[in-house]
Amino acid sequence: MSLDFIQKLVKPADTKIVLLVMDGLGGLSVEPGGLTELEAAQTPNLDQLAKDSICGLQQPVAPGVTPGSGPAHLALFGYDPITYQVGRGVLSALGIDFDLTDQDVAARGNFCTIDEEGRVTDRRAGRISTEKSKELCKLLQQVELPGVQLFIEPEKDYRFVLVLRGEGLSGDITDSDPQETNQSPLQPKALSVEAEKTAWLVNEFLTRTYEILQDHHPANMVLLRGFAQRPHWPTVSDVFGFKAAAIAAYPMYRGIAKLVGMEVLDVKDDVEKEFERLEEVWQRYDFFYLHVKRIDSAGEDGDFERKVNLIETVDAQIPRLIKLNPDVVIVTGDHSTPSRLRYHGWHPVPVLLWSKYCRADRVDQFGERACMAGGLGPNLPGVNLMPLALANALRLEKFRA
Amino acid sequence: MSLDFIQKLVKPADTKIVLLVMDGLGGLSVEPGGLTELEAAQTPNLDQLAKDSICGLQQPVAPGVTPGSGPAHLALFGYDPITYQVGRGVLSALGIDFDLTDQDVAARGNFCTIDEEGRVTDRRAGRISTEKSKELCKLLQQVELPGVQLFIEPEKDYRFVLVLRGEGLSGDITDSDPQETNQSPLQPKALSVEAEKTAWLVNEFLTRTYEILQDHHPANMVLLRGFAQRPHWPTVSDVFGFKAAAIAAYPMYRGIAKLVGMEVLDVKDDVEKEFERLEEVWQRYDFFYLHVKRIDSAGEDGDFERKVNLIETVDAQIPRLIKLNPDVVIVTGDHSTPSRLRYHGWHPVPVLLWSKYCRADRVDQFGERACMAGGLGPNLPGVNLMPLALANALRLEKFRA
Repeated sequence: MSLDFIQKLVKPADTKIVLLVMDGLGGLSVEPGGLTELEAAQTPNLDQLAKDSICGLQQPVAPGVTPGSGPAHLALFGYDPITYQVGRGVLSALGIDFDLTDQDVAARGNFCTIDEEGRVTDRRAGRISTEKSKELCKLLQQVELPGVQLFIEPEKDYRFVLVLRGEGLSGDITDSDPQETNQSPLQPKALSVEAEKTAWLVNEFLTRTYEILQDHHPANMVLLRGFAQRPHWPTVSDVFGFKAAAIAAYPMYRGIAKLVGMEVLDVKDDVEKEFERLEEVWQRYDFFYLHVKRIDSAGEDGDFERKVNLIETVDAQIPRLIKLNPDVVIVTGDHSTPSRLRYHGWHPVPVLLWSKYCRADRVDQFGERACMAGGLGPNLPGVNLMPLALANALRLEKFRA
Repeated sequence: MSLDFIQKLVKPADTKIVLLVMDGLGGLSVEPGGLTELEAAQTPNLDQLAKDSICGLQQPVAPGVTPGSGPAHLALFGYDPITYQVGRGVLSALGIDFDLTDQDVAARGNFCTIDEEGRVTDRRAGRISTEKSKELCKLLQQVELPGVQLFIEPEKDYRFVLVLRGEGLSGDITDSDPQETNQSPLQPKALSVEAEKTAWLVNEFLTRTYEILQDHHPANMVLLRGFAQRPHWPTVSDVFGFKAAAIAAYPMYRGIAKLVGMEVLDVKDDVEKEFERLEEVWQRYDFFYLHVKRIDSAGEDGDFERKVNLIETVDAQIPRLIKLNPDVVIVTGDHSTPSRLRYHGWHPVPVLLWSKYCRADRVDQFGERACMAGGLGPNLPGVNLMPLALANALRLEKFRA
């Protein structure tokens, strides 16, 4: 089902949809037969909501595929993540509110440490602070290259964004980041004739960068990856007719939301503040994407208990959401991050969809095993959630006579 | 899975399949946690059949998509409804047994009322009777246009079918029906060069029609939509090797059945008579499509109780069906029509598939929530039912060695 197909069915309605994404929500039990993080959490509000909802497990990309946060979110936004792929550089640039033009090629940068033989010893330069990163970016901003404008902007910690702006550039070049230590940074290469000029410019940039940074150990070099131009995708307004707001604190999620045309609101990385923001702007939008990051971080740290507690803090906010009287509520994650794996997992993610017309199933608990028996099934493609949300919001016409 | 793929696997067998379509079967409860129409109905025979069947919920088009009856039926007949799309005009023409040739372009017509400024005030001309419609069609049959033959045939109530027959015609033109009142009828336009002649002819026809009808208030004009030529699709005989009979009283369903090459039998709009017809012709066919319309009408009228009662009248006929000793029985709907929505819904439709080899699941009641837990799953694409029916009828070869 393409965006095109859905777009033709969309009709206007005065209804509001909330998509609450608990990042990395899905989990695993520590012991066989034990409870997952979500099952172990005390979630009376989510359980009550699940009781009145249609539930299931959703598959962000495909069975067995562990999704990155980018594709997983695109799926939740209704964009097939295999069709709609975007370079990391673009997500990073959009995430720091950098206004990408059609003349821009963006890359994600890491400050890194290299040894005397030029081999990478630390891909994150000892995780230098954002402050330090800002200083170093300032130094790099001195670099000038013929025929292009350069932007070097700090992101968070050791991360930065490089943007080249000019005529005839292309993102079709390889990374300098070898993704491993004990290897030298790679020399970016053009993957097409159109990209040769860009590859030459990037290599020039890397040469100058090394000259500038060489005495700034541990951040004595940079690694670049994900060269890309901003794609021209239909926006959620174009396709679904939404005026959509994103309430997300972390750069990358803000970037993805911006890429699909949501208005990205300022908000602190704090669950209560996020729900407060939702209340403040309730009248001004009809689609709300609300992102809670820290659950995923707890999973990546392997901290089962912290993940449980964070889920409970979100549960405590659910009554505020319900009080707003939304027409459709979806609660899910972008992917699983089982604390036992300390990493994204391929496991499908619990999801509940509530509306007046949802045809509730018999699930009465929001948890992995309870949701398996739900009406959405245990393997719903994540990309199907948006059409279901639209249908439940009475925003889709009948398909033919 | 394409028709092509299935066709290569089909083998002959002396087995009979019955597809019983209860139009608009799927429903919703009135109160949260309450029973749907099908759950509320006393259906001892369907429940017994469900117990021995594999059950589930089927999705006629795609998650969230509310299907029209045309696409929903095509899915049940094994034709992907997004690949196989057909104009309304063709379905209407086939439904009244009009024999469409390759030179024909058909449109669905409504008699309508327009005011002095030419704006539509009633798209259905006060729902004039079929009798009145016949008279008016006779008047319009006087219209002559250069180089084409015209057919104007009454359908039901205020509906009629217009067919243009001649060389070089095309269905690629826009509707005259504005789909809303307080607007003037639109001027059909060619969407391709090949359709310019047809557009001109249709506009001529509309001019003459207005001259003829202007004093026949409330039916003082017509609206045309769904211009189309009969598509050349493989028939169910070609693909599945069936000799197929359709037992359906309503024009549109008869039209779809004819389009896929079924023999459409004469029958009254009466459930008992339909099963009687099934018994009469049992020896002569090996696939039977039996369509019960009124359940959907009750749903569209928002009449929960009537829908319940009509479901029960079908249930009462099930023993007659079983007595015929079919090899495969599928009972489902083409779509949901929850009486609470008073309209087609996007909700998947209960389905049971019975055969000697079906591997029955644990479902022991034919209802929405019971079927969610069935072996066909809660989201089976409707188009998969036909291959499953064929397999259970031992009509499919193994795929490769």
